[in-house]
Parts: sequence; C-alpha cells; structure tokens
Amino acid sequence: MEKKPCSNSRTVKTAQILPPDANAYGTLFGGKLMAHIDDVAAISAVRHARKSVVTASTDSVDFLQPVKVGDSICVEGFVTAVHNTSMEVFVKVVKEGLLTAEKTVCATAFLTFVALGENGKPDIVPRIYPETEQEKVLFEGASRRRERRNERRKESQKMAKMFGSE
Amino acid sequence: MEKKPCSNSRTVKTAQILPPDANAYGTLFGGKLMAHIDDVAAISAVRHARKSVVTASTDSVDFLQPVKVGDSICVEGFVTAVHNTSMEVFVKVVKEGLLTAEKTVCATAFLTFVALGENGKPDIVPRIYPETEQEKVLFEGASRRRERRNERRKESQKMAKMFGSE
Amino acid sequence: MEKKPCSNSRTVKTAQILPPDANAYGTLFGGKLMAHIDDVAAISAVRHARKSVVTASTDSVDFLQPVKVGDSICVEGFVTAVHNTSMEVFVKVVKEGLLTAEKTVCATAFLTFVALGENGKPDIVPRIYPETEQEKVLFEGASRRRERRNERRKESQKMAKMFGSE
Amino acid sequence: MEKKPCSNSRTVKTAQILPPDANAYGTLFGGKLMAHIDDVAAISAVRHARKSVVTASTDSVDFLQPVKVGDSICVEGFVTAVHNTSMEVFVKVVKEGLLTAEKTVCATAFLTFVALGENGKPDIVPRIYPETEQEKVLFEGASRRRERRNERRKESQKMAKMFGSE
Amino acid sequence: MEKKPCSNSRTVKTAQILPPDANAYGTLFGGKLMAHIDDVAAISAVRHARKSVVTASTDSVDFLQPVKVGDSICVEGFVTAVHNTSMEVFVKVVKEGLLTAEKTVCATAFLTFVALGENGKPDIVPRIYPETEQEKVLFEGASRRRERRNERRKESQKMAKMFGSE
Amino acid sequence: MEKKPCSNSRTVKTAQILPPDANAYGTLFGGKLMAHIDDVAAISAVRHARKSVVTASTDSVDFLQPVKVGDSICVEGFVTAVHNTSMEVFVKVVKEGLLTAEKTVCATAFLTFVALGENGKPDIVPRIYPETEQEKVLFEGASRRRERRNERRKESQKMAKMFGSE
Ligand SMILES: CC(C)(COP(=O)(O)OP(=O)(O)OC[C@H]1O[C@@H](n2cnc3c(N)ncnc32)[C@H](O)[C@@H]1OP(=O)(O)O)[C@@H](O)C(=O)NCCC(=O)NCCS
Ligand SMILES: CC(C)(COP(=O)(O)OP(=O)(O)OC[C@H]1O[C@@H](n2cnc3c(N)ncnc32)[C@H](O)[C@@H]1OP(=O)(O)O)[C@@H](O)C(=O)NCCC(=O)NCCS
Ligand SMILES: CC(C)(COP(=O)(O)OP(=O)(O)OC[C@H]1O[C@@H](n2cnc3c(N)ncnc32)[C@H](O)[C@@H]1OP(=O)(O)O)[C@@H](O)C(=O)NCCC(=O)NCCS
Ligand SMILES: CC(C)(COP(=O)(O)OP(=O)(O)OC[C@H]1O[C@@H](n2cnc3c(N)ncnc32)[C@H](O)[C@@H]1OP(=O)(O)O)[C@@H](O)C(=O)NCCC(=O)NCCS
Repeated sequence: MEKKPCSNSRTVKTAQILPPDANAYGTLFGGKLMAHIDDVAAISAVRHARKSVVTASTDSVDFLQPVKVGDSICVEGFVTAVHNTSMEVFVKVVKEGLLTAEKTVCATAFLTFVALGENGKPDIVPRIYPETEQEKVLFEGASRRRERRNERRKESQKMAKMFGSE
Repeated sequence: MEKKPCSNSRTVKTAQILPPDANAYGTLFGGKLMAHIDDVAAISAVRHARKSVVTASTDSVDFLQPVKVGDSICVEGFVTAVHNTSMEVFVKVVKEGLLTAEKTVCATAFLTFVALGENGKPDIVPRIYPETEQEKVLFEGASRRRERRNERRKESQKMAKMFGSE
Repeated sequence: MEKKPCSNSRTVKTAQILPPDANAYGTLFGGKLMAHIDDVAAISAVRHARKSVVTASTDSVDFLQPVKVGDSICVEGFVTAVHNTSMEVFVKVVKEGLLTAEKTVCATAFLTFVALGENGKPDIVPRIYPETEQEKVLFEGASRRRERRNERRKESQKMAKMFGSE
Repeated sequence: MEKKPCSNSRTVKTAQILPPDANAYGTLFGGKLMAHIDDVAAISAVRHARKSVVTASTDSVDFLQPVKVGDSICVEGFVTAVHNTSMEVFVKVVKEGLLTAEKTVCATAFLTFVALGENGKPDIVPRIYPETEQEKVLFEGASRRRERRNERRKESQKMAKMFGSE
Repeated sequence: MEKKPCSNSRTVKTAQILPPDANAYGTLFGGKLMAHIDDVAAISAVRHARKSVVTASTDSVDFLQPVKVGDSICVEGFVTAVHNTSMEVFVKVVKEGLLTAEKTVCATAFLTFVALGENGKPDIVPRIYPETEQEKVLFEGASRRRERRNERRKESQKMAKMFGSE
Repeated sequence: MEKKPCSNSRTVKTAQILPPDANAYGTLFGGKLMAHIDDVAAISAVRHARKSVVTASTDSVDFLQPVKVGDSICVEGFVTAVHNTSMEVFVKVVKEGLLTAEKTVCATAFLTFVALGENGKPDIVPRIYPETEQEKVLFEGASRRRERRNERRKESQKMAKMFGSE
C-alpha cells in the first residue's frame, strides 16, 4: 500500500447554526457539535483508508466558547497518524459570527477510527506522512497520545465491568 | 441551598437504533451516540441545578462495542459531584439486542456542565451527596478527575491558539 | 414459552421538549407526543415478545395538560396483558418543569401490538403475570378493554368501506 | 361569526414512505402515521377557526393495513362538527402502492381540537354546516361521539390520578 | 401502454411552516421549499410512469414572496408532458396565512424526471393528454421548454468540464 | 463600503450520503441536493454582505450524475457578482466515491440572493472583484445572466397570475 500525505484526507464542513440545534438560550448543544465532529472525522478516515471505518474513541473535548444561533461553524479534520488498523484524526472547529465576521476556535478534538475489512474485522491501512509544520507537530505527538489511550481503554473496560449492564 | 442526593438527577432514555442512525454496515455512528449521551447528561444536570446549563467538556469516550440497527440502547446518567458552578455527570450506555435480550455496556462517559444564572453567567449549584456504593466510588474519584480536566483544559487552549482560526 | 412478569418489558424514555417539537406558542404537538408514546410502547412489546411487532391500534388519548418547550417528558410503558398474538401496552406520560421540578401526568394511553413471525404473520407470544398493585388493576381490566376494541375494529372497517379510497 | 361549510377546512397531504419512517421490515411506524394525522388535522382546525389550536384528544385508531416503504400515503382531513370552543376533525388515510396504483384505506381517525384566544384560553369558533352526504353522516354522529368523549375524559383524569406522577 | 390524462398524476401536499424550516427572521429557506417541490413532483412522476424515477433537472425558480413561520404552503404538481423516458412536471406553490386566510402564489417550477427500468436504465413511459384549459396551455409549451433545456444541458456539461472536480 | 474579493465568501460543505437522503434505489433525491446547494450559497452570500439574506431565485440545475448512498458530496460556493442589493452565487457539487476516490462534477448552479436591512427591505451590498481566472469568467458572464433572469422573472409573475391561488 502506498504512503499518503496527511493533506489527502483533509475534509471541511461549514454549517449554519439554526434554532433546532440549540437550547432555549440559543446555545448549540455540545452533543450536536460532537456529532458534526464525528461526521467530518469519519469522512477523513475513509478518505485515508478507502475502507469502511468505525469510531473507536474520542479523546476529551473542551468546549472553549459557546456557539450561538446565527453563527456558522467550520469543522475541519485530517488524519494525523496511523498505527496498523487504526487512524488518529485531528478536528478543529472554528465558529464565525456571520454578521460580524469574527472567528474563534471553539473546540479541538482527537478521534480514533478503525478500518474494517470486508469480513467486518479490523484491517490494515496505508502509512501516512506529514508535510506542513502543523501536521509534523501533530504526527510527532501521536505515539504518546496512543499510549495514554491504551491505558485509558483498560480503565474504560474496568468501568464497564464494574457498573455492569443492569 | 439544600444538599441533594445523586439519585435526584437520575435520567434514563431508551431508544431503538434505526437505519438513519447508522452507516452502510448498520453500525450506529459514534457521533449519534455522543449526541444521546450529551442529551441525557444535560437533563441530569438541569435536574440537579434547576437552572439552565451548558456542556463545558466531555472526557474521553471509548466505544467498546458496536451498536447495530435493531438494537436498543439505554442511556442512563446522574450527577456524581459538584464544585461551585460546575457538575460532573456520569453516563452509562447499555445496548440490548431486542430479539436476543442480550445486554452489554458499550460506553461510559463523564461530562462536565456549568449552570448559568439569569444573566447568562456561571451560577452556584446545590451540594450533592452519594448514597449507593457506586455513587460513592464515583463521588470519591471526582476531585482527581477534576484536576486532570484542569490541566487538559490548558492544553486545549494552547492547541486552539497554536492552530488559530484560519 | 415461559411466562414473564409485566416488569420485564418496562421501558423509560426521558426527552427534553425543544422548539422544533412545538407550535408557535411553544406547545408540544399532539402528534409528536403520540410518536413518543408509540416508540416506547413498541420497545416494551418487543421486550416481551422478543419478536418483531406492529402497532394494531391506539385507544383514545386525552391530552390533559399542555407540554411546553423547556419541559421534559418521561414516557414509561409496559405490557399489561397478552391474548394470543397481541399484547396490550400501557403508557404514562409525566411532564416535568425542568426549572421548577413540578411533575404532572399529562396523558395515559393503551396500545395494542401484534407480534409477527418470520413469515410476517401474527405469531404467538409468551403469557404474562402482574406483580404490583397497579399491574394487577391493569391486568384485570384488560379483557373488558379487549372486547370494546373488537367491536370498535368492526366499526373502523365499516368506516373504511363507507369512505372508500377515492 | 359567519357559519362555514365543512369543505372550507379540507386539507390534503401526500407523502412518500421512506426508510427512516419504517422499522427493519420496511413497515411504517404507527407513531409516524399518528404524527401525520395530527399534522393534517391541526391545519384543518386552524383553517376553520382561523385561531391557534391545540389537540385535546385523539379517539381510538385502528391500523387496518400495513404501509410499506415505497408506498405513498394520502392523509385527508376536514372539520366535521364544532361545539363552543372545540372542533371535531375527521381524518382518512389512503395508502397507494406507487408502482401498482392500488389504493386502500388504512386508517380513519377523529381528533378534537380546542381553539385558543390571544390570552391562551379556549375561545369560541364559527358554526359549521355539512354539504355532501358523507359530511352529513359525520355531522350527525358528532354529538354521540362527543358524549362518549366526555365520559372517557373523566376516566382519563381518574387514571392520571391513580397512577400519579412518580 | 395506455395513454393517461394529466390529472391522473395530480399530487397535493399541504405543510405548516415551523421554526426549524426558517432562518432567524422566520423566513422559510429557499432550499427547503425546493425539497418540498421535488418531493411532490417525484410522486407525480411515479404516478404517471408507475416506475422508479430520478430528477434530471429543475428549471429556474423565482421565489416571488417570502413564506413565514405560521404560514402553510400547498404544493401541487402534475405531469404536463412526456417525451420518451422523460416527463415534465409542473409545480405550483401557494402560501396561506393560517390566521388571515390570505392565499398567494409564491413560486412555480418545472422539473424533468426520467423513469428507470428494472435494470436501472431509462425506460419508456406512457403518453399523456391534457384535459383542462391550463393543462392544454402547459402541454403546448412543453416542446419549446424541452428545446431550451437541451441547449442548457450542453452548457451545464461545459461548465462541469471547465470547473473540473478539484 | 469596501470592495471585497470573491474568495472572501468561499464556503465548503462536505457531507456523506446516508440512506434517509436517498430513494429506494439508493439515489440521492434532487430536492435534498438543492437544499444543500441553497444552504452553502446562503452562507456565501451572508459572508459577502454581512447582512441577513433571502434566496430570490435559482437558475436551472441539471443533475448530471446520480449520487449514491456511500458517496460523499463536496458543495462549494462563492459570490461571483453583485448588483445593488442582489448577489449572484455560483455553486459546484463534486461527488466522491468514498471507497474508490473517484470524483465527478454532478451539478453546477447559480442562485441569486438579496440582502435585507434591519427593516427587512432590500439593502445595498459591498462591490466585489474577481481574482482567479475562473472567478473572472464567471464575473464577466454575470450581467448577461442577470438580464435573462429579469425577463424570466416577468414570465414567472405571469405564470403565478395565470394559475392563481385556488
Ligand atoms: C474499535 C473496535 C473495532 C476494536 O476492535 P478490537 O477487536 O478490540 O480490535 P483490536 O484490539 O485488535 O484493536 C484494533 C485497533 O483498534 C485500536 N483500538 C481499539 N480500541 C480503541 C480505543 N478505545 N481507542 C483507540 N484505539 C482503539 C487498537 O489500538 C488497534 O489499533 P492498531 O491496529 O492500529 O494497533 C471495537 O472495539 C469496536 O467495534 N468498537 C465499537 C466501534 C463502534 O461501533 N463505534 C461507534 C459506536 S456508537
Ligand atoms: C384541551 C384544553 C385546552 C381544555 O382546557 P380546559 O380548561 O379543560 O377547558 P374546558 O373544560 O373549558 O374545555 C374547553 C373545550 O375543550 C373540550 N375538551 C376538553 N378536553 C377534551 C378532551 N379530552 N377531548 C375532547 N374535548 C375536550 C371541552 O369539551 C370544551 O369544548 P366546548 O367549548 O366546545 O364545549 C386543556 O386540557 C389543554 O390545554 N390540554 C393540553 C392540550 C395540548 O397541549 N395538546 C398537545 C399535547 S402534546
Ligand atoms: C394488526 C394486523 C397484523 C392484524 O392482522 P390480521 O390478519 O387482521 O390478524 P388477526 O385478525 O388474526 O388478528 C391477530 C391479532 O391481532 C389483534 N388485532 C387485530 N386488529 C386489532 C386492532 N385494531 N386492535 C387491537 N387488536 C387487534 C387480534 O385481536 C388478534 O389478537 P390475538 O391473536 O391476541 O387474539 C394487521 O391488521 C396489520 O398488519 N395492520 C397494520 C399494522 C401496522 O402496520 N401498523 C402501523 C401502521 S402505520
Ligand atoms: C427577493 C425579494 C426580496 C425582492 O423584493 P422586491 O421588492 O421585488 O425588490 P426589488 O424589485 O427592488 O429587487 C431587489 C433586488 O432583487 C433582485 N431580484 C428580485 N427578484 C429576483 C429574482 N427572482 N431573481 C433574481 N433577482 C431578483 C432585483 O433584481 C434587485 O436586485 P438589485 O437591487 O441588485 O438591482 C422578494 O421578491 C422576496 O422577498 N422574495 C421571497 C424571498 C424568499 O423568501 N426566499 C425563500 C423562499 S422559500
């Protein structure tokens, strides 16, 4: 499989925030933003792998700024690193006051996707290489984040067991 | 303000997974699950605070098991701890094969919400106390998770600055 | 087939009422509430039958209280009685003023579901037994309600014929 | 207020049944059909009253025939009778196999709407008169249905009290 | 294949405009109206062809009047002419102030649909004949509109080539 | 008001096509694509005008290629020319086979938006200038397209009158 640049998976989605996306105070729901983030990240991951993918995990996300009805958001993602069957995707969300033109980063997120083969089992994905300065920074931090995720996953499995399904 | 038990904010939402919630392979999108999680957690937080709330952050979430069209999910949340104006909500998602009756925990999550006063500024919330064994375990771990979140938030702000809004 | 208790099919769904669910005066549409009721009742019926089901009928529903944007509703259902292939499900809807904590029953409903076998034809379901006082009251009233439904169904068929499909 | 004919409130809505409206077997959910019925009936009621309205109740509905993905439904309603502030709306649902042209009545329903004045309180509506044979039959049956509804409403209030809001 | 009258494909859809359909000023989005228009036109085309159809093109649409939350729209379409495998559908949109009873035409549109056979290839459709005065006017204008569309389509293909897919 | 370059209003939205967007054959509805086109074009127009806008018209759109479930679409728009209160927006839609990486232009469209002042009346917008070769070609063709639109609009008004609102 050929190595691919990070930029190959770059995906952009601009959306206007409308009343049904917001609470009574006109503030976008955190869950709706998470859904946009996952949506863009999934397209990035498929564009790198050219295989079906599933979200394996979302790292923590801080909602730094409220997004209001009448703002637009620009959600942008690309694959930053791959291991064997898994890919790390970085997503940045910029909100824009549509009448004021003011732009602010309101969240960043790392998600991990796993590619699935035709048998539905995790399947190998192409290697990746960074080109820009930002891509390099993210690429280099990936293995450390990966380690933390592996530990965290064990904790999650413990939690799941501890709380059980009843 | 009167102290309230964790159980007071307990919120349950059962939902059937239908084709529009799933990808071409019939697997629920991670982003849709995040939206359900945020939805239930927000109701829990309002039930504790009896004030309007916004999602401040989501800790990392591992999707331990795929959820399929034809499964139902039961999303259950309650407030585990409060600081001044913020509340930590724990959410557990159990999927159930509707025809098989088999139940599995497929994700757990911690979210932080901030209560807002009538002026739209963060506003104090009632104290909380745990009653069951599980509530106690979660209550006790809260301050350690809170510290980690504070560090993480600084990193998020650094990321936001580093990547800018262009 | 083993007999099952009513409680085995108990299903709860809490939902926040948002602007898209409501008319210009902020009141939830009756049709949206009916959709929530059918949704919860269908999960209850599948949990009892562990088979695919279809709604055969809805008894009359009175909307006793308006539900407003900003309220949450808690829709709760369970199977109250079974005949051969059909199940009666009772649903209760409690609205809660999220900022006031005030709770009111705003509707109750009886629906009938029919289980379908793999050939798509009505298929036998397990017997049921009530445990709590409320379950017993509902269980005992079931055969009388069933009779009324059988008569009513004949009237419905007459109406359908009388008005024809043009 | 001028008397108006039943025909003045006649409202028609044709819709195609798509996968998100249906269960895993391609059958339209009963709750979705109820939402279409309420939707059309509410427009009929507003067209008669030229005031805001709320659904007060739905009489029982029998789902006589399954509606499948690929069918269209034609939902048609008009006001059949008025009392002081309330209106009875009759709705007929005809499904059409889009490729076969076959049409079948799959449900009929009676709903009651109450008109609200600017103060949000029940408000008087114009008188109505039937013109066609069908309208006359429905008009004449209205007072008997109204009586049954008044009794039924008392039962509903008793149920609500009996089951309480906990 | 038997010739069919235009009236055979007549399709009506009435819908209330609700907040999620509108911008911050309560005005219906043009794109939502286009979606309603395509929806009704597609049912008309299937009713004529009794085959699966796809939208081949939309002629230009002028939005003559804003539609507001609280208005209803009545979208009405029928097939006006057929060629071999394609059908021209005319759609008229009338808005109605629900409280004022005032009605205004707010848009008219011509769409072209192509019928598909079971192999997914364009497939012949029945001939059509107009009956009313309006149907005749539209039927007669069809071949001129068809010519313009053929030219326009060449331009569209040129545009597509000129701008490429990057 | 300062002159602005075309590029200032450039807006991109990538979206995955899912089952609810498509007909029984897995083909995206024309009306859904129109809604995406209008959505992106409206953001472009607001970004140029920094005022609220409404869609005045859509020129004809040819759907050159079917878009299938499992494809993604990339909808891209920018303002190409302005007159006094109106702006012409060009939109290009590229579909991408997510597993094959194949990209094809499937539609292009010109829409006209009118900026509204705080009184809700048409309001003047900033001048615009093209920079790239493509922007120049589009900018130069604008006045000719504008003339055609003015004629067409008169025809639309005649049609509206001819068919009336009954
Ligand atoms: C993600 C999933 C496919 C992993 O399957 P598995 O059998 O545990 O596979 P493995 O342990 O062999 O791991 C496969 C890869 O996934 C990675 N992975 C698994 N869980 C992960 C997690 N929580 N976070 C990050 N990466 C994870 C592994 O590190 C491994 O990566 P590598 O191949 O690049 O080294 C499985 O857990 C799953 O299906 N989860 C549900 C996914 C889903 O449906 N998401 C939407 C939920 S709504
Ligand atoms: C319907 C409602 C306005 C009635 O208010 P009320 O204070 O009980 O009013 P009244 O007892 O004076 O009744 C007013 C009219 O409604 C009728 N009515 C009340 N409840 C009814 C019911 N369940 N079924 C049929 N008619 C009913 C009365 O017969 C009376 O009719 P009339 O004026 O033509 O004689 C009130 O119960 C309500 O707001 N319910 C909720 C409506 C709603 O929000 N629906 C959507 C729920 S999701
Ligand atoms: C419900 C349905 C399966 C019944 O099929 P049928 O061939 O008439 O079956 P039968 O007369 O043998 O009845 C089967 C059972 O359904 C019950 N039933 C049928 N119609 C009913 C009604 N309107 N209300 C309550 N129970 C009903 C019968 O009493 C019988 O119950 P039992 O086996 O427990 O004694 C059939 O009418 C149907 O498919 N309706 C459409 C269901 C649907 O699609 N709902 C959603 C519509 S949007
Ligand atoms: C578009 C609209 C604001 C024009 O209002 P108007 O009072 O006719 O205004 P004018 O005739 O002064 O025209 C204002 C501008 O709009 C342009 N315009 C009007 N109708 C147009 C059309 N159908 N196509 C293109 N441009 C049009 C005029 O050319 C003029 O442009 P300019 O100021 O740059 O020279 C009005 O027709 C309207 O509100 N339409 C409904 C818009 C809407 O709600 N869209 C969504 C429908 S669901």
